Amino acid sequence: MSVLEKIDSPADLKKVSNQELEELASEIRTAVLHKVSNIGGHVGPNLGVTELTIALHKVFNSPIDKFIWDVSHQTYPHKILTGRKNGFTDGHFHDITPYTSQRESEHDFFTVGHTSTSIANALGYAKARDLTNDKGNIVAVIGDGSLSGGLAMEALNNAGDFKGNLIILVNDNQMSIAENHGGLYRNLAELRATNGQAENNFFKTFGLDYKYLENGNDIESLIHLFEEVKDIDHPIVLHIHTEKGRGYQPALENKEAFHWHMPFDLETGQSKVIDSGKSYSSVMLDYMDKKVSEGLPLVAINAAIPGIFGLKQFAAKYPDRYIDAGIAEQFTITFGGAMAAAGARPIIFHNSTFVQRAYDQFWHDLAINEEPAIVIVKGGVISGSDETHQGSSAMTWISNIPNIKYLAPTSEEEFISILDWALEQHEEPVVIQMPEHGLESRPTVLTDYSTPSYQMTKSGEKVALLALGGLYSHGEKVAKVLAENGINATLINPLFINDLDQAFLENLVENHQVIATIEDGILDGGFGQKVASFLGKYDVKVLNFGAKREFNDSVPVTELYNRYHLTPELMVADILSLLK
Amino acid sequence: MSVLEKIDSPADLKKVSNQELEELASEIRTAVLHKVSNIGGHVGPNLGVTELTIALHKVFNSPIDKFIWDVSHQTYPHKILTGRKNGFTDGHFHDITPYTSQRESEHDFFTVGHTSTSIANALGYAKARDLTNDKGNIVAVIGDGSLSGGLAMEALNNAGDFKGNLIILVNDNQMSIAENHGGLYRNLAELRATNGQAENNFFKTFGLDYKYLENGNDIESLIHLFEEVKDIDHPIVLHIHTEKGRGYQPALENKEAFHWHMPFDLETGQSKVIDSGKSYSSVMLDYMDKKVSEGLPLVAINAAIPGIFGLKQFAAKYPDRYIDAGIAEQFTITFGGAMAAAGARPIIFHNSTFVQRAYDQFWHDLAINEEPAIVIVKGGVISGSDETHQGSSAMTWISNIPNIKYLAPTSEEEFISILDWALEQHEEPVVIQMPEHGLESRPTVLTDYSTPSYQMTKSGEKVALLALGGLYSHGEKVAKVLAENGINATLINPLFINDLDQAFLENLVENHQVIATIEDGILDGGFGQKVASFLGKYDVKVLNFGAKREFNDSVPVTELYNRYHLTPELMVADILSLLK
Repeated sequence: MSVLEKIDSPADLKKVSNQELEELASEIRTAVLHKVSNIGGHVGPNLGVTELTIALHKVFNSPIDKFIWDVSHQTYPHKILTGRKNGFTDGHFHDITPYTSQRESEHDFFTVGHTSTSIANALGYAKARDLTNDKGNIVAVIGDGSLSGGLAMEALNNAGDFKGNLIILVNDNQMSIAENHGGLYRNLAELRATNGQAENNFFKTFGLDYKYLENGNDIESLIHLFEEVKDIDHPIVLHIHTEKGRGYQPALENKEAFHWHMPFDLETGQSKVIDSGKSYSSVMLDYMDKKVSEGLPLVAINAAIPGIFGLKQFAAKYPDRYIDAGIAEQFTITFGGAMAAAGARPIIFHNSTFVQRAYDQFWHDLAINEEPAIVIVKGGVISGSDETHQGSSAMTWISNIPNIKYLAPTSEEEFISILDWALEQHEEPVVIQMPEHGLESRPTVLTDYSTPSYQMTKSGEKVALLALGGLYSHGEKVAKVLAENGINATLINPLFINDLDQAFLENLVENHQVIATIEDGILDGGFGQKVASFLGKYDVKVLNFGAKREFNDSVPVTELYNRYHLTPELMVADILSLLK
Repeated sequence: MSVLEKIDSPADLKKVSNQELEELASEIRTAVLHKVSNIGGHVGPNLGVTELTIALHKVFNSPIDKFIWDVSHQTYPHKILTGRKNGFTDGHFHDITPYTSQRESEHDFFTVGHTSTSIANALGYAKARDLTNDKGNIVAVIGDGSLSGGLAMEALNNAGDFKGNLIILVNDNQMSIAENHGGLYRNLAELRATNGQAENNFFKTFGLDYKYLENGNDIESLIHLFEEVKDIDHPIVLHIHTEKGRGYQPALENKEAFHWHMPFDLETGQSKVIDSGKSYSSVMLDYMDKKVSEGLPLVAINAAIPGIFGLKQFAAKYPDRYIDAGIAEQFTITFGGAMAAAGARPIIFHNSTFVQRAYDQFWHDLAINEEPAIVIVKGGVISGSDETHQGSSAMTWISNIPNIKYLAPTSEEEFISILDWALEQHEEPVVIQMPEHGLESRPTVLTDYSTPSYQMTKSGEKVALLALGGLYSHGEKVAKVLAENGINATLINPLFINDLDQAFLENLVENHQVIATIEDGILDGGFGQKVASFLGKYDVKVLNFGAKREFNDSVPVTELYNRYHLTPELMVADILSLLK
């Protein structure tokens, strides 16, 4: 009988002898690797915290003592030890979520997926505990990479004023998805080099107590440390040095690639998914290469996710043109905007779900100051993602900020054409919604995007389809089904997400009964509702197709398309029902 | 001839002898006090940096050397020295803006009004300077209070990696609008107490060079310090201790009240504006008092702006129920949400323009986790504010986040009724849009706000008016003008900003030709566009009244109401034009 077979809850772990814990760590790693090699997932973060998680559950009493995990992409060992080990066996991988979920277990307290939240969440729990005379240790577990996010530092500052029990476990694996960036990480390196005794101590400057542990993968040392601080009466930082990817050679050799990995061959670490070649990202990289060669003061900026855009390749070739700000989305926008104001040509790369952390920087810095930076937003689509990474929000907020040109190309040619124009002008910020449904080729007409100009690609009557960005080709399919139903629909590529081509829309009213908009995101606040509002005073019916305002946790896209009437057949049925 | 009379540009200042500079400081203070006592404005911040500003312009060469001011509420001396002293004389107070503006002067580089942006902006300028082989010192001037905002710390971290000239002047006046909060401020106090020699140094932990100056109101010391670091080849923090309100006794005695002050009597410091008594804020305070007495685990949370809500009064009575997180909006939402999740009953107080800094915390923490916290949003209206404090954005983003109940009471009774319900339920976050056009009394019908239920207050035909929140009484006026035109309009108090009462709207279509929505904010993404979208398939005309998506810099409200057709007469004209 393996050690893991004996454990269905933290209580079972307490009965296991200290001698068996090393064996348990090995079994947990095997379970984690079995799952992630099959379906993909976070590899390095989970392998690194295996011992730390065992020691936490050995010393503390979850859920009376509460572990609050930052991002929670490192909670596979925690899940295995809290009654969810079945989720690591064939046929059950999807029975559990890849992040913590209070709906899944009494040992989880938050649904998270973004970084830098754990200290604020833990402090909230600790403060409420003291206010309601409740009991228990509150332990935040945060990676060194997450410390660079402003929210984490705001919380450290507030923790410094707190008077009760709070344990902030800093899991220092010397990585930030990609390598760490910023002066703070030299301080962490000094602390590691001096066994926590360096002259300046980042955590102590916030007024926090501090202890360092060099071997954070040694269960005995971890248990000893946790026993020392259990029930402590004030906030303390435990700075623990761990090894990301511990116990799996490919993950140790390529820490960034194995932060999150697609399904891979366990023997070799080779990906099971073949790189599909040319993509919008590769088109973008070739384009930047060309522009830098032409002498443009172009700079690529991102926040710790170069892999998603292939930017490491660009960084290797043009190190002085590449800036990874670490996990600091707010900074990238204010900083990048200022670079544009000062005459450089920054292109800022973001994922939809993370870029929303910079809302005010878009509004107050980029937009009010009309800084001609370019922001590329990827992943702003209706997808089967988990709810904490739902990117379908992008258009609901970006499109409502004044002074921002927000464009949705439908093809490689339009993407390049927009980039050309955006880099030539110095008048306004340009946000480009990257299409997501595969690279498409389509001739482009516009060369100037300063005023909105919708493109009519097929002239028809009765029904007009405004099919935006990545869903333009979806509009083509809808037109085809309408044709099968005897309707010669007009098809339009609007391109402009938030600026209406009012004259164009007024013309459409003349010979159309129904105007349907199609967009790849939540409807509220987006493109279609602006069209509906503008057309409210005209004699025409308007239908907005897109997603409902709701969170979806890993719901298959086909199910969402059916729910939202986004399949061509359901759309056509809705449209036909309105025709006189 | 006064010293100031000789100065129309920084070049003139360079000709002034060092002996005359003290006299100049005194003249600048007189000019500043003359203006702010007459029309209101930032008092303490400007008085505190007078010497510092003189020394900057004496040593550096603006605009080749660039000063980038955080918030820029402390730039009156800078404006006086850079050709704008006329803006401090009678009849010309409004010729210049109260913040920096690159459209106003070549000595200003950004339009700002929110905190914590200066280091990121300065680093952007410095990086662009080096990339384009440009010249000049880049100097960020940031107050100690602004350091607690996440963006400032993200930027300090990135500055620690920078290799070129960058001077970060930390103007430490020991205040954060209100008093400072957080452990970091104990470190600043240690640094002040040790003349910059304390064991741990917040700035050095980011890898930054550092110098301390104790007497930051001594021009000679300041000049000496600036001469020492001019043209430095790496980033350095100049930690300068100044006195907020220097030279004006009332501002020294009450630093928070004189951070920003309404017009006041210069002799006594007494406000010229009489407190108008009962308000939504005072109603709120009385309500909290009652609830705490009843034993509710209620906590009031805010981010450095207690004065706006009168929270100091509450804090004095219930110190353990009051949390000022410092300038850290993101933290307040994640932290407050966690307190709610843990069983406490937090009420989080925000100003519309600042709360947008917590967009992702609303989405990812409050909403996904359905944490039953209450957020009060004040100032979310169409107003004559400057563009960096334009609050009319609130509904454009809050109303598009799933899982958030967003309500707009129209009266004291509704406000209380919503609070009662919000504190009793534990299912969802509740955001309350505080009305702004004076306290109104109106009987309330609903006691349960879990499902949307619009209130018809007057039944009519042909025209229906959905008048939201603070503009409900505006809707009453429109109905009256319509009546004068022979139309008996239906009047509705929608109350629910982002959840449609669909059955109600479908019923309205039956006997109305025009449905008009009225809202106090930017239309894009707000209430009316959701109504227009829902009604798109029905035989009814929809008109959305509200603000255009644009920034307005201190444009009078009457002008905006005319521009947006928000006066009853213009609205009625638009409505009548659509009636058959």
